[in-house]
Amino acid sequence: MAEAVVTMDGWCALHDMRSFDWASWKVASEEERKKAVTELKELMDKWQAVEDAKNGSHAVYKVVSTKADLMFMFFRPTMEELEEIKTELNKSTIGDYLIPSYSYVSIVEMTKHNPLDDGKDRELSPQVEARLKPILPKWEHACFYPMSRRRWRDYNWFEISRQERTRLLYEHGMTGRKYAGKVKEIITGSIGLDEFEWGVTLFAHDALQFKKIVYEMRFDEVTAKYAEFGDFIIGNYLPKEDVDKYFAL
Amino acid sequence: MAEAVVTMDGWCALHDMRSFDWASWKVASEEERKKAVTELKELMDKWQAVEDAKNGSHAVYKVVSTKADLMFMFFRPTMEELEEIKTELNKSTIGDYLIPSYSYVSIVEMTKHNPLDDGKDRELSPQVEARLKPILPKWEHACFYPMSRRRWRDYNWFEISRQERTRLLYEHGMTGRKYAGKVKEIITGSIGLDEFEWGVTLFAHDALQFKKIVYEMRFDEVTAKYAEFGDFIIGNYLPKEDVDKYFAL
Amino acid sequence: MAEAVVTMDGWCALHDMRSFDWASWKVASEEERKKAVTELKELMDKWQAVEDAKNGSHAVYKVVSTKADLMFMFFRPTMEELEEIKTELNKSTIGDYLIPSYSYVSIVEMTKHNPLDDGKDRELSPQVEARLKPILPKWEHACFYPMSRRRWRDYNWFEISRQERTRLLYEHGMTGRKYAGKVKEIITGSIGLDEFEWGVTLFAHDALQFKKIVYEMRFDEVTAKYAEFGDFIIGNYLPKEDVDKYFAL
Amino acid sequence: MAEAVVTMDGWCALHDMRSFDWASWKVASEEERKKAVTELKELMDKWQAVEDAKNGSHAVYKVVSTKADLMFMFFRPTMEELEEIKTELNKSTIGDYLIPSYSYVSIVEMTKHNPLDDGKDRELSPQVEARLKPILPKWEHACFYPMSRRRWRDYNWFEISRQERTRLLYEHGMTGRKYAGKVKEIITGSIGLDEFEWGVTLFAHDALQFKKIVYEMRFDEVTAKYAEFGDFIIGNYLPKEDVDKYFAL
Amino acid sequence: MAEAVVTMDGWCALHDMRSFDWASWKVASEEERKKAVTELKELMDKWQAVEDAKNGSHAVYKVVSTKADLMFMFFRPTMEELEEIKTELNKSTIGDYLIPSYSYVSIVEMTKHNPLDDGKDRELSPQVEARLKPILPKWEHACFYPMSRRRWRDYNWFEISRQERTRLLYEHGMTGRKYAGKVKEIITGSIGLDEFEWGVTLFAHDALQFKKIVYEMRFDEVTAKYAEFGDFIIGNYLPKEDVDKYFAL
Repeated sequence: MAEAVVTMDGWCALHDMRSFDWASWKVASEEERKKAVTELKELMDKWQAVEDAKNGSHAVYKVVSTKADLMFMFFRPTMEELEEIKTELNKSTIGDYLIPSYSYVSIVEMTKHNPLDDGKDRELSPQVEARLKPILPKWEHACFYPMSRRRWRDYNWFEISRQERTRLLYEHGMTGRKYAGKVKEIITGSIGLDEFEWGVTLFAHDALQFKKIVYEMRFDEVTAKYAEFGDFIIGNYLPKEDVDKYFAL
Repeated sequence: MAEAVVTMDGWCALHDMRSFDWASWKVASEEERKKAVTELKELMDKWQAVEDAKNGSHAVYKVVSTKADLMFMFFRPTMEELEEIKTELNKSTIGDYLIPSYSYVSIVEMTKHNPLDDGKDRELSPQVEARLKPILPKWEHACFYPMSRRRWRDYNWFEISRQERTRLLYEHGMTGRKYAGKVKEIITGSIGLDEFEWGVTLFAHDALQFKKIVYEMRFDEVTAKYAEFGDFIIGNYLPKEDVDKYFAL
Repeated sequence: MAEAVVTMDGWCALHDMRSFDWASWKVASEEERKKAVTELKELMDKWQAVEDAKNGSHAVYKVVSTKADLMFMFFRPTMEELEEIKTELNKSTIGDYLIPSYSYVSIVEMTKHNPLDDGKDRELSPQVEARLKPILPKWEHACFYPMSRRRWRDYNWFEISRQERTRLLYEHGMTGRKYAGKVKEIITGSIGLDEFEWGVTLFAHDALQFKKIVYEMRFDEVTAKYAEFGDFIIGNYLPKEDVDKYFAL
Repeated sequence: MAEAVVTMDGWCALHDMRSFDWASWKVASEEERKKAVTELKELMDKWQAVEDAKNGSHAVYKVVSTKADLMFMFFRPTMEELEEIKTELNKSTIGDYLIPSYSYVSIVEMTKHNPLDDGKDRELSPQVEARLKPILPKWEHACFYPMSRRRWRDYNWFEISRQERTRLLYEHGMTGRKYAGKVKEIITGSIGLDEFEWGVTLFAHDALQFKKIVYEMRFDEVTAKYAEFGDFIIGNYLPKEDVDKYFAL
Repeated sequence: MAEAVVTMDGWCALHDMRSFDWASWKVASEEERKKAVTELKELMDKWQAVEDAKNGSHAVYKVVSTKADLMFMFFRPTMEELEEIKTELNKSTIGDYLIPSYSYVSIVEMTKHNPLDDGKDRELSPQVEARLKPILPKWEHACFYPMSRRRWRDYNWFEISRQERTRLLYEHGMTGRKYAGKVKEIITGSIGLDEFEWGVTLFAHDALQFKKIVYEMRFDEVTAKYAEFGDFIIGNYLPKEDVDKYFAL
């Protein structure tokens, strides 16, 4: 039996992807549409106030594929707050047009294995605090995907030693470091919370970097042997000031 | 051929996840909405009366993801009662807005292998009776997931000896004991009843503990080698006194 | 190349699971609802007349989960009759509320391998005739699931010898015999007809027996090594005299 | 690297399964329904004229399960014609009620491996021509399923030698020959065209023969080791003269 | 750890498959339909202007199966433009009838491994530029499918050496060259962007060539051992001048 990993855990996260019902939106009255957009911007103000107070963070991205149209990301101290945000959005006027297409529940996670780990005592450092309660960067592009580690006979992540896991993750971290400044990564754990074991949220100024980093990492032994991926979803940042334009017909 | 396990079996269980149709709810008349909520609370009173008489148990949780909005859990002596509860909910006014998203049918199960087994004669003890007919804790958070044991060539749970199964489950139980007071677990069997072989229902005061216990257990040999998981769904407790607020627009 | 099995084949079977659209049912006029229920009972009378004449059999069960609400089982000499029954149900008034959720097409099958085989010349015996053209028991509970045999490198059912298959199925049959009087089983073959290779329809007075028999059989070598299961669906018997009550609001 | 197979290729095929929206059909006016059925019969006449001119073939079957209600099969020289037939059906009045449930695109294929191959020079013979441009038999029952060959480490169809493939397919062909007169088979290739690698369309006077032939073939080494199957769908022939009755309420 | 591949990357690509809602289209007013088609043709003009300026490319194909009715392909320098095209299409009048059925996001990719690689310094050549920013051929037929490389114990693409990968892809390229003039191929990378690792877009004058090339390539060692395919979708070219006819009732 392999030694279990010890995690440090931070904010709870809800990635909430929605398709927008443009057909119904078009037959709504202009008054209804104006009300809907105004309310959404008020919600965004409210979310921003929480972020300004460092009690949470959020971001909204326009999805490129047709798997969804909007990707909302919410980070909060508790699951209660996440459920309330979801329900408040559903109760709002624009909620009628935001059809759920996919969601993911997880908790920000750091481990001794973390490839970005600098070896210092993380319990106390402000850097650790900042990483466990991350203010989401408002970079041009975001990418979300869930993943798990294999438990196959030959490739069984949960059966190999802690030392081997650390070695593999250290190597993986070295690949990641090459993308410093180009890609920002937030790892959230979802074992016991959602379908896969982890969520990975990436941010980049240039969407090509998502392909480059995930591609290069696929050759890392830890990925080549042990990783199973869910679906990838990418989006372009939607700042509050562009909300009117996005929903305008 | 491995020796089959002998189980003790208790109440039947229906986990019934529903998405709430907020868009239709908003266009319903205030009268209709009031009627719907009143009826739901009456149903909850009825369910509570059954629970008070120790003839069953139930709990309602608000789901964090968008896989569903509400998770109803019903435990009853018979399958007849479970079907009647489901149909009564569907026939009720609020049933029109409660779109089924997932459900699970199982029966409370204890085995000699049970990691929480205290070794006493369980047939007669009130503790066993209480575990086979569990009153669901109304803790802040609940987590449900189904799981099966692998029947792979190398990892074939149903081909290893009873002694080996007991050893693995004892070890697993030791991990579980660390979470006493933090996580309460109810195991229900669903072989022959639903898609996976078991259902696991967890309760916690702090949702992080779901991640911690399931994560740590993943390193247990029995999980690392033999477990296959379905999807995980988590929720926040919805007491009857908060029902009005939940459905208020 | 392993010796192929020879089967004896009986009636064609359609398992037809339907979700009931309660929301539309509630907005239908009372007249429409009365007409719909009356027609359904007339169909049930018609099906019963066929059963009384031993030209087929049927049963209706209320499904416990939300995978469906009603499970119709139809056994008839020909596929033509099955399609006609399905279409007649769809054309009937209540058909508008019976949304298809799952179905399964198969043919009653007996083999020399059959674990219940008594070794007599089955071609001529009335017992064989009765098993190939089974009148469905109207027991309190029914369970349906499809299954296949693995064709894996190590566990390849269709590559092992006929003798080995017989040995494994004999052992399996011994497990089944323990449940005589508690569980009644009808095996239908669906190779070339539907998604899995066989359908298994179980009946029991106590739904717990579904779990007990399928659980115990999972330790049989034939199941542990060679079985792949589809989803399980269970229901409670709905006799014609309870139809009015079931659909009453 | 194994020697690739050389194929002879004939007509393009579209298998187009549709569910019929009986609920909407019932609320349509009698005039609308009459128009819809008349148009469908006109389309069938048009398809028949093409078939009479040997420029294509078609058949319509009533599906037994609830996976679909009607299975249309269209064989034409070009993909352009297939898309036009689909779109013409969608544009027709009855198209509003024919909800797509599944479809398959493929091209009639013969190979040197073909188990029915008689060893003559097929390039020139009228028999080959007839098999590449098959007029679909209007037998009582049809069965369609897609399949692929495995590319597993131990069972890798595309890595074994041409000689071995021929041996396996010859054996397979011997099984097929036993069903001459009982089952008619059309093989279409779909590598590069649809989800699986081949489509298999069977016709029989007695639906039991579908089960018998596919069951017996499962013991053929080529199937036991190398075959992966999609879903099976079976139907009963719907001649034009029965169309009125089928859609009558 | 295997040496990672270095890619050259070009335009971003969105493959956007849509089902057309013919039933709603028929009940739309003639005025609405005329407006919808006119707007679509204006969009096509706009897309063409971008293509004429070599700032992107596009093509529209009529899908043969019922998986979709139309396949739009958009290639642009940025993900922002792709999302804007998708949203503009959704906001347009015809967008109400274009139900998303599948989509794929990727980026044009060339590697040293590319089987068509001519060994010259690609960084500077106009040929490379043309391949990274491809003007889509308006050939009669198009085929799209996503694919990944296996990471199995025995067949692990990301664990074999760069030399071995080059050898396998060179062989693969030799197969491709046989189809020069018959099939045109555009490879786009989607690691980190969508569900599979690559998208393959093929064009042909004769749809049979899709089957021939993909079939023959299946025997290439790189495919036989390492390829996993998603679904294949094929279509017939829809030039702007045929748009009126396509949507005419």
